[in-house]
Amino acid sequence: MDEVKLNIFGFGNVGRATARILLEKESVFKERYGLVFKVLSISDTSGTVWLPEGIDLHEALLVKENFGKLSAWINDYEVYNLSPTEAVREIEGDLIVDVTNDKNAWEWHMEALKIGKGVVTSNKPPLAFHYSELTEKAEGKGLPYLFEATVMAGTPVIGLLRETLLGDSIESIEAVLNGTTTYILTQMEEGVSFEEALKDAQKLGIAERDPSGDILGIDAGYKATILHCLAFKPITFDEITVRGIADVSMEEVRKSRREGKTIRLVASIEEGAVSVGPREVPRGSPLAVSSTQNAAVMKTDLLGELVIKGAGAGLRETASGVVSDIVKAALKIRGA
Amino acid sequence: MDEVKLNIFGFGNVGRATARILLEKESVFKERYGLVFKVLSISDTSGTVWLPEGIDLHEALLVKENFGKLSAWINDYEVYNLSPTEAVREIEGDLIVDVTNDKNAWEWHMEALKIGKGVVTSNKPPLAFHYSELTEKAEGKGLPYLFEATVMAGTPVIGLLRETLLGDSIESIEAVLNGTTTYILTQMEEGVSFEEALKDAQKLGIAERDPSGDILGIDAGYKATILHCLAFKPITFDEITVRGIADVSMEEVRKSRREGKTIRLVASIEEGAVSVGPREVPRGSPLAVSSTQNAAVMKTDLLGELVIKGAGAGLRETASGVVSDIVKAALKIRGA
Repeated sequence: MDEVKLNIFGFGNVGRATARILLEKESVFKERYGLVFKVLSISDTSGTVWLPEGIDLHEALLVKENFGKLSAWINDYEVYNLSPTEAVREIEGDLIVDVTNDKNAWEWHMEALKIGKGVVTSNKPPLAFHYSELTEKAEGKGLPYLFEATVMAGTPVIGLLRETLLGDSIESIEAVLNGTTTYILTQMEEGVSFEEALKDAQKLGIAERDPSGDILGIDAGYKATILHCLAFKPITFDEITVRGIADVSMEEVRKSRREGKTIRLVASIEEGAVSVGPREVPRGSPLAVSSTQNAAVMKTDLLGELVIKGAGAGLRETASGVVSDIVKAALKIRGA
Repeated sequence: MDEVKLNIFGFGNVGRATARILLEKESVFKERYGLVFKVLSISDTSGTVWLPEGIDLHEALLVKENFGKLSAWINDYEVYNLSPTEAVREIEGDLIVDVTNDKNAWEWHMEALKIGKGVVTSNKPPLAFHYSELTEKAEGKGLPYLFEATVMAGTPVIGLLRETLLGDSIESIEAVLNGTTTYILTQMEEGVSFEEALKDAQKLGIAERDPSGDILGIDAGYKATILHCLAFKPITFDEITVRGIADVSMEEVRKSRREGKTIRLVASIEEGAVSVGPREVPRGSPLAVSSTQNAAVMKTDLLGELVIKGAGAGLRETASGVVSDIVKAALKIRGA
């Protein structure tokens, strides 16, 4: 039985969903892969809980859910005040799991790789701005650097591009990668104003309190950048064109509808050219997704058209990608 | 640069498409993966061409296309008369590539694995009847045994199940896995009789001269068996229920159409229960595919619904899966 030591960074919704799945599926992973995961540390904004014998995830979830922060955990556990870089350096571990939104996380990802730890992340900016440094460092060190959950939650579009289709060359990808904008555009078709639809999305927990990342197309832009890096070659978010949905008018939405079409925030990805913006898609198109579903239509030289469609958001759906990567990374580390 | 030695069995349409892609993409594979493929032997029903220095694929294609058989190749090359098992045993190679329709091929697949050769195959019966022997032997030997092209041509549904979704448990798969039956059913919707539609399909090269494998649901049944083996546990084709489309009446087709539905040959796969048969699907369903497109709708515990849709037939589309597996197998052999 191979024991793999994890350091988890971030204990918000996705972090907790990840912990829950690791708990629920402990015996599945032992049986299916011969893997046992031991979480040596969990960090949230209040501090780092660190236990060399392994943290009881049940208790960690209880503390966080009852007190809102890990630092409230004072009876059995020590809570340390460490920067992520310090935690990466000082705490033993095979694999760091970044489920934060830290924009500067690429620095401690690099640190982890330098000292021989693999990385699994659902955090987009490190990839959208530092793809080539991070993946080159990981490759040089023979370490896993995995990021399935950054695009389309756990729907395995990253795995598809990385690990299958090895004989094909991708020619283009068109994709709907953001659920909040789909929700708002769909509501507008029903006659609800942009502002009202946005408020509803926030109430339903589909949009965040600060929805600008979704509305302005930044979230979809990060994801499109990552897909370009995988399908073609590394670029950064600064090199792509992004237009959000804030200026889509009710009139445009109605006109599309009358013509049997629907407007979606579409990412168009070709070699060296990535653009994200509102586009009309026919009702029958795979891109005419609803709710938080995402879809990608890839064209390749050998296969022609290939469609993958599935959850693009949701806690367990996102944690699915994180956990799949944890397993994959553990198998790679064990094999090495 | 790593040189990987191949023995190709079968030089029909898929075998030749595979050879063509290996030729066309020689420099791509060298650059992308550091891999060079050398084909040491090619076998067709007329004999085996074997050259330790590597066969010129251009010439092999010319001979086969001009004379219809490899045994016509008499100037530079020796043509041997070997059974597949003899060829597997006697000819040097890292990897055998089975693009035949040999129903007994599992015997020489086993032989290859026993003597340390990896296997890539587009041939379904070995998997549909001997999945567990073959994959256990391969695992025991640490050798690749890959079969992407057996289901949905190169559309990577096998890769998706094998190499991604490692944290999820599959609950069910519903899939349209046969293009010939889709063609016939679509034609029947246009008022063409079953018999006429079948004749057209044969004329167009969509159906084979002996179309019984498609029409009776055997082809889809093989594929559904393979998906069950991957998603749940090994079974054989003998354990599944199959009904073809031969008894679908014009009246049923018309009735479905009036109700906004369409009939497709659908494979339903749950743990321990696989059935293939004609089913009504709503027009908007991902299973309402057309032409030779295939689709699979998977339900998992974490992700919910996941759809993959793409080419299910075609020469380059099938060879895409074979070549992707050749690359994957070569990378595994090199890593070992």
